[in-house]
Amino acid sequence: MEKRMLIKKTIEEFSAVLASDAPAPGGGSVAALSGALGADLIVMVCALSIGKEGLEDYRDQLSASATRARSLSGSLLQRVDLDTRAFNGVMAAFRLPKATDDEKKARSEAIQKGYQEAIQSPLGIARECVETLQLAESLLGRSNTNALSDLGVSAQQAYAGLEGAIMNVNINLPSIKDAGFIVETKAETASLLAAGKAAANAVNAYVAGKLG
Amino acid sequence: MEKRMLIKKTIEEFSAVLASDAPAPGGGSVAALSGALGADLIVMVCALSIGKEGLEDYRDQLSASATRARSLSGSLLQRVDLDTRAFNGVMAAFRLPKATDDEKKARSEAIQKGYQEAIQSPLGIARECVETLQLAESLLGRSNTNALSDLGVSAQQAYAGLEGAIMNVNINLPSIKDAGFIVETKAETASLLAAGKAAANAVNAYVAGKLG
Repeated sequence: MEKRMLIKKTIEEFSAVLASDAPAPGGGSVAALSGALGADLIVMVCALSIGKEGLEDYRDQLSASATRARSLSGSLLQRVDLDTRAFNGVMAAFRLPKATDDEKKARSEAIQKGYQEAIQSPLGIARECVETLQLAESLLGRSNTNALSDLGVSAQQAYAGLEGAIMNVNINLPSIKDAGFIVETKAETASLLAAGKAAANAVNAYVAGKLG
Repeated sequence: MEKRMLIKKTIEEFSAVLASDAPAPGGGSVAALSGALGADLIVMVCALSIGKEGLEDYRDQLSASATRARSLSGSLLQRVDLDTRAFNGVMAAFRLPKATDDEKKARSEAIQKGYQEAIQSPLGIARECVETLQLAESLLGRSNTNALSDLGVSAQQAYAGLEGAIMNVNINLPSIKDAGFIVETKAETASLLAAGKAAANAVNAYVAGKLG
């Protein structure tokens, strides 16, 4: 397996490795990248807004939003690789020996641990996509109108990242045996989706009202 | 200005250049990249489906879909750079001299041409995102169920690309003086959005039905 981090690949190279018969990187890593691109666009929108006429009152907010979005982008970029590693962890657990009862038990525990990580990974992506969406919403009417489409795209990307991450949670959930973990996870995904949808709807309505 | 193509940058580098005070690359290039990632995931889903038990009947369709998705990804990746170039074209036109009437006329024509290209560019992205969404829909029930989340993410990315591209059309449309161009463009974006929404809804409903 190639050791170079996915985010050290060129976009062309990442696209090629995605479009292959290897199951990872896959949708989880793409969801993380989508969120990161959304956060990057928020940094850009803030940079294009700070100090602009009519936006003087929002300087501190814009500056704080840029800092937070930069940090979200950094974290989501790391998650591009983490998600592929979590998937490969599950695959590695399935390859553990299962000749004896002890081996079977250890393998089964490793598989469960692997699936829990393969769920925690997209859950982390989903949380940061929601925060990105809420940052985008907080900039409505307080950022450069020339960059309104960029703010809108930012929300589109973060929302796609959120929905995509939750699909990656949901596809792994049936493999989990811990009923408490399942209940907690379902409650959190429902709450993240509701929060993300509210922010995305607010951004989309505002952009549609201004741009058509 | 740096000459290296955006898609020759690493993901980390692209993220950094996006999160800057330069207005391009911006939302248009991100929309193109989002569509390309969606198309790549379709190639992957097809590769993970061809020859799988129960999917023997769909071999030809899967193979044709993979070929088409690979081509869409290649085209959308090119559009990452094209869109930034189109934006820079408008900016260059604004910098043309306007001392004489002839210069004013030439500048005004160059600006109009620039805006038309800055609209044709995201329109092209939107068209290919719709085709990507329709490919995703055509694979429902005909592809590897282990990769259903990847198919779902593919549609999320292509849909975000479509909406994002149309925001980039809409932000430039008020600068166009040619009424016929405006009417034609609005008709096409409405039709693309309707087609894209229909396909995205079908994919989302299917994925939600299977994964929750």
